[in-house]
This record gives sequence, structure tokens and C-alpha cells, in this order.
Amino acid sequence: MVNYPNKKKTIHTHNTYVHSVVSNSKHYTAHRGMSLEEDISLSNEYYLSASIAVIYKKPTPIQIVKVDYPKREAAKIVEAYYKTPSTTDYNGVYKGKYIDFEAKENKTKTFPFSNIHKHQIDHLKRIIEHGGIAFIIIAFTTLNEVYLIDASYIIHDYYHESRKSMTYEKIKTLGHIIPQGYQPRLDYLKIVDEVYFKEEKK
Amino acid sequence: MVNYPNKKKTIHTHNTYVHSVVSNSKHYTAHRGMSLEEDISLSNEYYLSASIAVIYKKPTPIQIVKVDYPKREAAKIVEAYYKTPSTTDYNGVYKGKYIDFEAKENKTKTFPFSNIHKHQIDHLKRIIEHGGIAFIIIAFTTLNEVYLIDASYIIHDYYHESRKSMTYEKIKTLGHIIPQGYQPRLDYLKIVDEVYFKEEKK
Repeated sequence: MVNYPNKKKTIHTHNTYVHSVVSNSKHYTAHRGMSLEEDISLSNEYYLSASIAVIYKKPTPIQIVKVDYPKREAAKIVEAYYKTPSTTDYNGVYKGKYIDFEAKENKTKTFPFSNIHKHQIDHLKRIIEHGGIAFIIIAFTTLNEVYLIDASYIIHDYYHESRKSMTYEKIKTLGHIIPQGYQPRLDYLKIVDEVYFKEEKK
Repeated sequence: MVNYPNKKKTIHTHNTYVHSVVSNSKHYTAHRGMSLEEDISLSNEYYLSASIAVIYKKPTPIQIVKVDYPKREAAKIVEAYYKTPSTTDYNGVYKGKYIDFEAKENKTKTFPFSNIHKHQIDHLKRIIEHGGIAFIIIAFTTLNEVYLIDASYIIHDYYHESRKSMTYEKIKTLGHIIPQGYQPRLDYLKIVDEVYFKEEKK
């Protein structure tokens, strides 16, 4: 059994995909029943504990309507709703640079733009304009392949292509496959090194 | 009346301080009944709309226990609890650099370290180690003064001083007073320029 050190109890909420993946025998980490979100969380915990990077998933935004205070210290939320996030799910710092990304799973061999919010596209665009590193991690669950693609390609096609999706072939060409392993589970920072820190090796 | 453009409806949850401040006639923005959090949010919205920086407050982390699904599209959370945040409240990108900070209000002329979680201190320490910009914004509500202080000073005293607080005088000496105005309400990036981007002006 694969045993991860420092594994925190992560609460997976607002992610119906997790459940659908777990019940799907062909998802990309079938041997462990993990979702892309869980794999990225484990990778981030590894990067944090190994002092490689500080990257977190943002909490799911919740609109709280009603809170009960049975005791002073244990406020209980009794009515709340999921809100649409304004930004992407992940951000942090790596080698002094700001990193920002969204992660998406696909069961088919295409990445439909309906899978990402327009304000997330615009957010990624702004990150690039301000000198940050912005990308999307796309998992093709039936192929057991995960890609990192610079956000600029998605932003371009989102706004300038009539086709409202990006094919697997195009992602494979423009993106980079992320090595999967034991620790980190998904070594996406290896790809970040290759794509965004190349010139520093001169 | 001061009228802010682009003012989004911000949901203020898990912040009992907001309420106590609003009901306190001597808080630092008495003329508008705003909290430090609201002022920073307005400043961040201004920075965003003026293409100066992309900085957001992270959503409050919530542990969701029970969700009702009366309809497919309107999940209602009926039992949830506030979680202790692992990181600071604010982060983003400015001039290509990763920015990370926490904001705290004080009614007295001291900043008690009980006001900040140990893991937030450790988080800020890691940010500095990874080349990010880390600071704390401290408002002294009775004085109507807001300071930006580099996180390293707080981290140092937190771990090496027997006194479990930092005095107003020390914060005034080591930190920088943030200009208050119409737009942005709190121009903390002006101080970030002075403190962290000085050498770029050579």
C-alpha cells in the first residue's frame, strides 16, 4: 500500500467529480482510487514538506446565510450555499515566482471550455499580464495521462476559436505530460522548471 | 458620501470583529463604518480594475458536514463549521512577485501574538524563504493608523522574544504607515514599492 507521510485529512467538498471518479473503474489512478485534486494536494504537501514550494488549494467559497451559536466557541453554520469561485483553485510561490493554476479532469479526449468559468480564464490572463506563471493541469482519466498547458493557449482558443474546446491532440502538442510517481505523486513543478525557468539555466 | 465604483457585494463571514468595530464609535474609519477587511477588499478591487495587481482574500475555510440536495443545482449546506486557516488571508501577484499577508485590527496600542496563529507565522516564514514578499497589515483602530510591517520582524519576536506581543512604538519604528485615501482606500502597495522594490529604481 502506498503510504504518504504528512497526509492531512483533506475535506473534499463541492466536488461531485471525486465521487464519480472513485466509482469509475477506468479513472487515471485506478489503483488508488484518488482524484486529480487529491493527487495535487499530496504533491503540494510533498513540495511544502521538502521546502520546494508553497502552493495551496484555496478553500471553496461559501455564502453563509445563517449561523447558530449554541456555545460561544462552536458556531454552527446551518444554512449556506456554494458560490462560484472568482479565481482559480491553486496558487502559491515557487522560486520567488507567483504560480497560479486550475486543475480539470476529463473523461473524454477533449477539454471543453464549458469546464472552466470565464472569470477564471480572465483571472489567468491577468496573472500572465502581471508576470505570474499561469497554467492549467488537465487529466485525461481514461488515458491515465496528465498534462500541464500554459494558460495562454487556452485563453487564446477560448476567445479566438469557434471551437469551444481543445482536443487531446492539441493539448499533447502544446502542453507537457506530467510525470507520475510515488513522491511527488504528480511532479508538475518539474514541468514548470522546463517551461518557465529554462532561461535561468544559461 | 463616498461612492466606490466596482464595489462587489462581499460576504463577511467568520469575522466577529467587523461587528464589534462597526458598533464602536472610535474605530479607525468611523466616518464610513468600514472594517480593515472591507478597506483592503476595496483597495484590492481598485488594484485589480486599474491593472496594478491581482490580490484576493482567500475564502474562509469551512468544514462541511451535511448538504441537502433539494434540487440538482441548488445544494444547500445545512451543517458546517469554521476551520482554522492553514495560511494567511491574502495573496496574489504584484510586478511578477508573490505577495502574501495577513491583516489584523487592534483596539489597544499593542499587537498581541495571540492574535495570529502559529501556522500563519510559519507560513509567512516559508514565503520569505521561497522568495515571496510577506508582511502583516496592522490597524490601530483607536489611533486611525494602519501599518505595514515586514513579516520577518514579527516572526523574529514571535520566536525569540519573551514578550508575546509587539508594541505600537516598535511597529511604528520597524513598519511603515499606510496612506489612507479615497482610491485606493489603503494604498499598501505604495509601501510595498518603497520596502521591496527600492533597488529596482537604480
